[in-house]
Amino acid sequence: MSKHFNDLLEKVSQCSKKKVAVAVAQDDAVLEAVKAAKERGIADAILVGDENKIREIAAGLQMDLSDYEVIHVEDVQEAALKAVSLVHDGKADMYMKGLIDTKGFLKSVLDKEVGLRTGKPLSHVCVFEIKGIDHLLFLSDVAFIPYPTLEDKVHIINNTVEIVNACGIQNPKVAPLAAVEVVNPKMPATVEAAELTKMCEEGQIEGCIVDGPLSLDLAIDPQAAKHKGATGRRIQGDADILLFPDIHAGNLVYKCLVHTAEVKNGNILTGTKAPVILTSRSDDFETKVNSIALGAVVAEELGKNK
Amino acid sequence: MSKHFNDLLEKVSQCSKKKVAVAVAQDDAVLEAVKAAKERGIADAILVGDENKIREIAAGLQMDLSDYEVIHVEDVQEAALKAVSLVHDGKADMYMKGLIDTKGFLKSVLDKEVGLRTGKPLSHVCVFEIKGIDHLLFLSDVAFIPYPTLEDKVHIINNTVEIVNACGIQNPKVAPLAAVEVVNPKMPATVEAAELTKMCEEGQIEGCIVDGPLSLDLAIDPQAAKHKGATGRRIQGDADILLFPDIHAGNLVYKCLVHTAEVKNGNILTGTKAPVILTSRSDDFETKVNSIALGAVVAEELGKNK
Repeated sequence: MSKHFNDLLEKVSQCSKKKVAVAVAQDDAVLEAVKAAKERGIADAILVGDENKIREIAAGLQMDLSDYEVIHVEDVQEAALKAVSLVHDGKADMYMKGLIDTKGFLKSVLDKEVGLRTGKPLSHVCVFEIKGIDHLLFLSDVAFIPYPTLEDKVHIINNTVEIVNACGIQNPKVAPLAAVEVVNPKMPATVEAAELTKMCEEGQIEGCIVDGPLSLDLAIDPQAAKHKGATGRRIQGDADILLFPDIHAGNLVYKCLVHTAEVKNGNILTGTKAPVILTSRSDDFETKVNSIALGAVVAEELGKNK
Repeated sequence: MSKHFNDLLEKVSQCSKKKVAVAVAQDDAVLEAVKAAKERGIADAILVGDENKIREIAAGLQMDLSDYEVIHVEDVQEAALKAVSLVHDGKADMYMKGLIDTKGFLKSVLDKEVGLRTGKPLSHVCVFEIKGIDHLLFLSDVAFIPYPTLEDKVHIINNTVEIVNACGIQNPKVAPLAAVEVVNPKMPATVEAAELTKMCEEGQIEGCIVDGPLSLDLAIDPQAAKHKGATGRRIQGDADILLFPDIHAGNLVYKCLVHTAEVKNGNILTGTKAPVILTSRSDDFETKVNSIALGAVVAEELGKNK
């Protein structure tokens, strides 16, 4: 059971060595993370893109390319299709975004011939280790689905539970968050939170415990839960998964954690056949490396279930 | 100009001594904060409520009631009306919630005879000192207006600018927040953020600089703003006011700051004739004291403008 990012790295070291296919790999920050992931034994990489540019950046990073497979494809969209097809064909275990815009990258992820579609909707999961909280927190969705419907939220929960399980945590507690912890008919987020709770009780959502609506303090702070007398609730400051009402709430909390708290984090796109690493240019170096480690752990689990 | 809570306390020490009228004062946590506020020279208090219960709690807190005016009113709603009328009549400078539910308390605030109505809509402002950020941040609305319309947002900005000014900060920078920093017609929060920016440029919103939509990193982190190349924007990680798209986003960020970052904070209700202190039972002791200090600073400023 992973309680910290170090536990995840330990878990990676017990997996078979994974390989990440990088789409349009001529990107400084991405190559730097890929290099560190290899050096730390997290994953090897296949670099697809403009070979000259890749070699130029690698030289600057003192990165020995003889350790990597490099596939020259000059055109950006073609490079992405080549990279994703490597994952599709089982030659790599996960897929990572390089110097390509998110739209073009997602187009390759969803490509009907060589992409990683499963028929399930995609969603985004962030894993956080936060100073003062004694276990990992999984946040969704902070980057991908703008205004999830009730049905989307069920998919988000299922997708996220899969990632949580891969990290060795069974039957996670899911907190559908809102400004308040009581149902208010004038606040749709609270109504949907109660509906999700009911659906879980009735077995329509499985493999987790859903309890909402919850305010953030009741979800993550056992002291606050005690102080507010939330003793009857299934979640009392010990949530594993934080489900956000919409992308604004999710993204603002995500950035609040990254920019004001002491954290380690990694992010992954899920609902796909293999893990997809879609870090943004605002993510720092360690976040990118952590995301590759997270991808490796998830790839191991998906491999087992094949 | 206040950059830290200590600057606000310094400012309080330069004001004439203020007095807070407490509605239904028989509340442990509130009396403890009122006692500390008096000991620290922040404000005196008039305690309205059930005198026996007030004396009992005060004894437990080793609080000498001979330093306070105590007015016995047993009925909760009548006690609130008595307390608010003291502020209405100028016998106290600010109004604070004790052991009364928020609904009943607000009813007294809005009472047509003895309340503190101005005709302007009320809104809630939180002031934060956050480790790693070199100036105070003012958040609104995280507790009062659930789904602000564009018009509500203009009122929220005006109400908040008044509080910021009282803290000695002129022409604050206002960041209407969203998940992204570009206008997306499918995301109403980004469209309204752009409209507020335009309204400010055209002089319909005065006394501040509005620049949105902004993601939280661009609003509060100058390094992130630089990294993302936001050099053309009026806000580059140096926002004073964070305007939230709705109460869920605001409240979740508020609780995220309180429960995961190193902060000092105080909260106030504004849009009223005098400052209203509406702390919640989840606010800790220092937050309650800080809120009284904030109220004193705002009362001084409102007094000047009379």
